[in-house]
Amino acid sequence: MKHTLVALVENQPGVLMRVANLFARRGFNIESFTVGHTETTKLSRMTVVVDGAQTQVEQVIKQLYKLIDVLKVSDVTEDRTIDRELALIKVTASNSASRAEVVQFVNIFRGKIVDVAPDSLIVEVTGTEEKVDSLLDVLRPFGIKEMVRTGTVAMTRGGSVSARLAEDRLEAAG
Amino acid sequence: MKHTLVALVENQPGVLMRVANLFARRGFNIESFTVGHTETTKLSRMTVVVDGAQTQVEQVIKQLYKLIDVLKVSDVTEDRTIDRELALIKVTASNSASRAEVVQFVNIFRGKIVDVAPDSLIVEVTGTEEKVDSLLDVLRPFGIKEMVRTGTVAMTRGGSVSARLAEDRLEAAG
Repeated sequence: MKHTLVALVENQPGVLMRVANLFARRGFNIESFTVGHTETTKLSRMTVVVDGAQTQVEQVIKQLYKLIDVLKVSDVTEDRTIDRELALIKVTASNSASRAEVVQFVNIFRGKIVDVAPDSLIVEVTGTEEKVDSLLDVLRPFGIKEMVRTGTVAMTRGGSVSARLAEDRLEAAG
Repeated sequence: MKHTLVALVENQPGVLMRVANLFARRGFNIESFTVGHTETTKLSRMTVVVDGAQTQVEQVIKQLYKLIDVLKVSDVTEDRTIDRELALIKVTASNSASRAEVVQFVNIFRGKIVDVAPDSLIVEVTGTEEKVDSLLDVLRPFGIKEMVRTGTVAMTRGGSVSARLAEDRLEAAG
């Protein structure tokens, strides 16, 4: 089963390596992995989508907590979350008919055309993994020249903050 | 100076660890790191933004090529690229006046409101790092409860494919 983990980590060189190490040692197949800034400059936030059994995932969370740079880990799989990823897709469109058709599909998926070349278009789209996959399915017949996806980031719905413990811990740690 | 590297790697467990290891050993401060699927299921695409001198970055590219799972690495810093990241921002909005103001700012930045709670909103926005930073600057006075950013992904403009060598190499490798 796919699990989405959100981890808050201190923004230090080497922390990415230590976390990646831990997943690799346990043989997890990582579906996607993103690291980016948070609202606090000292902290980074990782979103990791892994495929594994519940017990395995619980074990890995315990292991993550043992890393000094890891402040908080949540398995948000069962929570009500907003899941989003961003994709850039370079699709072949060498005549006006196919260009018009691509634009039509992109509009249905509320994507944007962000670059036009004589024989291709670059499409930007955001959504759940399923939504991006669906757009890809309709664009594939035109010819996908290149694609990059960010992988999923997740945030719990409502007003609560999944990371609220982290700053206290950071302050406590000095 | 900031460099944006795009690497195509085989989709194997442990490759993330090996790449992260390499950057960590050289003491690079990684600004952002994203890994996601490509148009080919066997391949993942990494976008790494690092801060370092030209010579250091050239060295690390050479080292990356020595990793068996790494098929292609490009420094796209000087290329004409589309750079995008996705951010989800949970912002405090506990009355209708502040909610209206937040919505106004979000519209200017062509973001979307993707969740509403009695005292907060979740905003989705895509753009360059600078654009996301600018939106954050105007939202910060309301109170940022939580934020997650994917980190930048990059694609060269025009019809050429920065990854065109990869599939040949993968085929050659069997």
